[in-house]
Amino acid sequence: MEFTAQQIADFLGGEVQGNPSVKVSDFSKIEEGKPGTLSFLSNPKYSQYLYESQASIILVNKDFHEEREVQSTLIRVDDAYQSLARLLTLVDQTKPKKTGISPLAYLAPSAQIGEDAYIAPFVYIGENVTIGKNVSLQAHCSVEDGAKLGDSVTLFSGVKIYYNCVIGNHCTLHSGSVIGSDGFGFAPTEDGSYKKIPQMGNVILEDNVEIGANSVVDRATMGSTIIRKGVKIDNLVQIAHNVEIGTNTVIAAQTGISGSTKLGKQCVLAGQVGIAGHLHIAEGTIFGAQTGVPNSIKRPNQVLQGYPALPIMTFHRSSVVYKNLPELQKTVYTLQKKIQELENRISSIS
Amino acid sequence: MEFTAQQIADFLGGEVQGNPSVKVSDFSKIEEGKPGTLSFLSNPKYSQYLYESQASIILVNKDFHEEREVQSTLIRVDDAYQSLARLLTLVDQTKPKKTGISPLAYLAPSAQIGEDAYIAPFVYIGENVTIGKNVSLQAHCSVEDGAKLGDSVTLFSGVKIYYNCVIGNHCTLHSGSVIGSDGFGFAPTEDGSYKKIPQMGNVILEDNVEIGANSVVDRATMGSTIIRKGVKIDNLVQIAHNVEIGTNTVIAAQTGISGSTKLGKQCVLAGQVGIAGHLHIAEGTIFGAQTGVPNSIKRPNQVLQGYPALPIMTFHRSSVVYKNLPELQKTVYTLQKKIQELENRISSIS
Amino acid sequence: MEFTAQQIADFLGGEVQGNPSVKVSDFSKIEEGKPGTLSFLSNPKYSQYLYESQASIILVNKDFHEEREVQSTLIRVDDAYQSLARLLTLVDQTKPKKTGISPLAYLAPSAQIGEDAYIAPFVYIGENVTIGKNVSLQAHCSVEDGAKLGDSVTLFSGVKIYYNCVIGNHCTLHSGSVIGSDGFGFAPTEDGSYKKIPQMGNVILEDNVEIGANSVVDRATMGSTIIRKGVKIDNLVQIAHNVEIGTNTVIAAQTGISGSTKLGKQCVLAGQVGIAGHLHIAEGTIFGAQTGVPNSIKRPNQVLQGYPALPIMTFHRSSVVYKNLPELQKTVYTLQKKIQELENRISSIS
Repeated sequence: MEFTAQQIADFLGGEVQGNPSVKVSDFSKIEEGKPGTLSFLSNPKYSQYLYESQASIILVNKDFHEEREVQSTLIRVDDAYQSLARLLTLVDQTKPKKTGISPLAYLAPSAQIGEDAYIAPFVYIGENVTIGKNVSLQAHCSVEDGAKLGDSVTLFSGVKIYYNCVIGNHCTLHSGSVIGSDGFGFAPTEDGSYKKIPQMGNVILEDNVEIGANSVVDRATMGSTIIRKGVKIDNLVQIAHNVEIGTNTVIAAQTGISGSTKLGKQCVLAGQVGIAGHLHIAEGTIFGAQTGVPNSIKRPNQVLQGYPALPIMTFHRSSVVYKNLPELQKTVYTLQKKIQELENRISSIS
Repeated sequence: MEFTAQQIADFLGGEVQGNPSVKVSDFSKIEEGKPGTLSFLSNPKYSQYLYESQASIILVNKDFHEEREVQSTLIRVDDAYQSLARLLTLVDQTKPKKTGISPLAYLAPSAQIGEDAYIAPFVYIGENVTIGKNVSLQAHCSVEDGAKLGDSVTLFSGVKIYYNCVIGNHCTLHSGSVIGSDGFGFAPTEDGSYKKIPQMGNVILEDNVEIGANSVVDRATMGSTIIRKGVKIDNLVQIAHNVEIGTNTVIAAQTGISGSTKLGKQCVLAGQVGIAGHLHIAEGTIFGAQTGVPNSIKRPNQVLQGYPALPIMTFHRSSVVYKNLPELQKTVYTLQKKIQELENRISSIS
Repeated sequence: MEFTAQQIADFLGGEVQGNPSVKVSDFSKIEEGKPGTLSFLSNPKYSQYLYESQASIILVNKDFHEEREVQSTLIRVDDAYQSLARLLTLVDQTKPKKTGISPLAYLAPSAQIGEDAYIAPFVYIGENVTIGKNVSLQAHCSVEDGAKLGDSVTLFSGVKIYYNCVIGNHCTLHSGSVIGSDGFGFAPTEDGSYKKIPQMGNVILEDNVEIGANSVVDRATMGSTIIRKGVKIDNLVQIAHNVEIGTNTVIAAQTGISGSTKLGKQCVLAGQVGIAGHLHIAEGTIFGAQTGVPNSIKRPNQVLQGYPALPIMTFHRSSVVYKNLPELQKTVYTLQKKIQELENRISSIS
């Protein structure tokens, strides 16, 4: 499919600057832009590429001021990244959709599947599972006894949903993600061994949740581990038992959240963050990469980084001094000596 | 099933404080306690919930002193968490057990399976595999050629056991865990590329080991990677080739242990800990979250945290100073100036 | 199979020191060496074991000087580790190879498979997939529509290749690894929720790439996430969308690389390293374990560690001072007081 700059601008409510009849049929990154493709500029780091890009059309923010002439036709929009998202979504929706239940899948007799499902070969669906309309379950997914999936759920290949877990509408789970594995609960005994605490609860994902590849959400000991609506979780993330993640919180790869901790809504966790157990994290908290969080965060909307999580400016200032520590120590020792000398000199004077 | 407070107290060897005939049929967390449920108080952080909890029965430690009146019936026991574990285990054991070998599983002709096995659809069992009694292998597990599973082993869906690995009795492996993947061994060559060192050894899990979802234990280059009996490993943990983990050691999520390192027994590793290769870690060592361990730990039973792993009190004191580093540096510079002035004044005097 | 020391030395171009006719039929680690086995000494940490080892033959580097008498027959070679690799590879190649396409696998009608393939039970191969010669796809692998695998590719059980991804010749992927999952791209909207950016690109692994168990490589938003030839990636590693990893770079377990970052060739990343997005890392950079990298690295061939990544000697010196910080602070406060006293004394004198 081909579209002109004018057609795209009309769809996005944007303004053409350049040739309104230039046509594109594909997307490209600005630094790899080719004729016949549409690109975008959102991150200012990439502004330099605007002037040499071969892309026929480039989406830019309304308030962007170019420093010199641009060859490409620009479309000015309120938010270039969001507009790109709209275009990509449009194209994505034209992809052919698979439907039908493969005869090579296993469905327990008591399982109930809604309309327009795609169930791939080698999918396993246990007893008393209920599944909504319009789902896509790719190869090697397993949905164990008593689990419940809403409408328009997509499970990429190899997703594992343990028994009795609940997945809301419009959730997307990537390959290898595991929902409902046992929480890590063991009671020490007198001989030094550990006794397992059976994990009797479940996991609830509310609507519009996305879970990345090979991420894990453990079931609750009692009650539910809860991922509120709109939460987006990246790859290789660990969510322990009885955790609750607030609405629209975003969690980047390899972050881990320990048992029973509650995160407020609209938090943003960068990669490799670790949060200890039994804490409360106020809404709107932003943690920088690799932050360690040993204590609850009570004031909302702070930006924190380091260990223990510090206000980000404090963290940056301290990490600058950190690399000068040996010199600072040397300076202190020199001062110590000088003071000793001064004391001696004064004593000899007075 | 319903039980009275008196029946539960008798089973646990505890003492009822309140109404001995109140009945419960389910469990709840103390902060979400509902009538008709049993809850528990073990972590003092949650004591505040005791007084408002709607739970009909709450297990508490014998030595717990309540600060004001409690509505719920209490059962006083030696260890509330362990007693809860006993009750949960009791209920867990009444869950119906699946048995039988699915006609949709693949079993190599030479594989041997013990009595009372449950083998789910789409399980793959290779040549010369031997499997003990009373195992449960859920959908999409694969047990490759020559592997050996003991009695009462549970593999949740999608567990992968590579060839020739050995799993002891009463081991539980969660979804997506991988046992016996190649160790990360490559020899550099003159042209800058790397030549793979074939990994000829295996992995041995002794009895009563639990492995969390999506964790990986690599096979040894030669000999065995060994996980001793009673070890409990959480989700997304990395155990490299030729590692040995001592009896009853506990390893929390996202921790990584590099090649050929040996951990003593009864160690406790919090989340996101990293241990370098070829080290010895003394028994009873406790590492706080995100600790980095570049050197062997020779003295047993230390509690360490930070990088490089420091005694925990040192680490905490240093991290308090860390956030004041810019101020400390400023103070030192001020002192430097003052000393210069003092020196000048003294010189002018003497 | 048995070989004499002389035969092995001839194969490796090495020199026998001891009994040239002693025979071995297996391998062992030097600290566990048994008669009839061949061992090796490469890491000097293990030199102590040389003198007591029961191994019949031990490979050592040509320039190794023993401190006292050794019982085993030595074979002196240019590089003991590489020579071991050659021997292990030789033995590895004699292992019987499975071939044939299981009738329990699912192959879409339009899929094309080259000669001498092994396709295990429960493998899923989608529409328009093309697969080269001599591949091994173990149980529960899934290769989605339009993906392309080269010759001599090995997928261990449970590997997931998303649609349209490209895997080069001689690549090895371990169990649970995921290639081509969606990049983590979401645009914030005005109501606080996030809108998914469809990820339209793919992943390209060039030749001779190895990917560890449960590692994830996300597909590009547009264009390709690229892993150049000879790259070796360990377990549980995260490679985000639009990343490019340079030729022969080695990445240890649990490391994460954020979106659009480019690594040069011949880099070495130790375990649990984190690299922020949109950076350039110069070729030959070596990052120590747990390093955090917030900025681009422009000078090649540096060895860096800590947060933010510092020259390794600076990092080590600073971490030594770190543990003395409370004392250093105390010293500064003491000096502050002494200077106050000195000022007072001088004022009283002059």
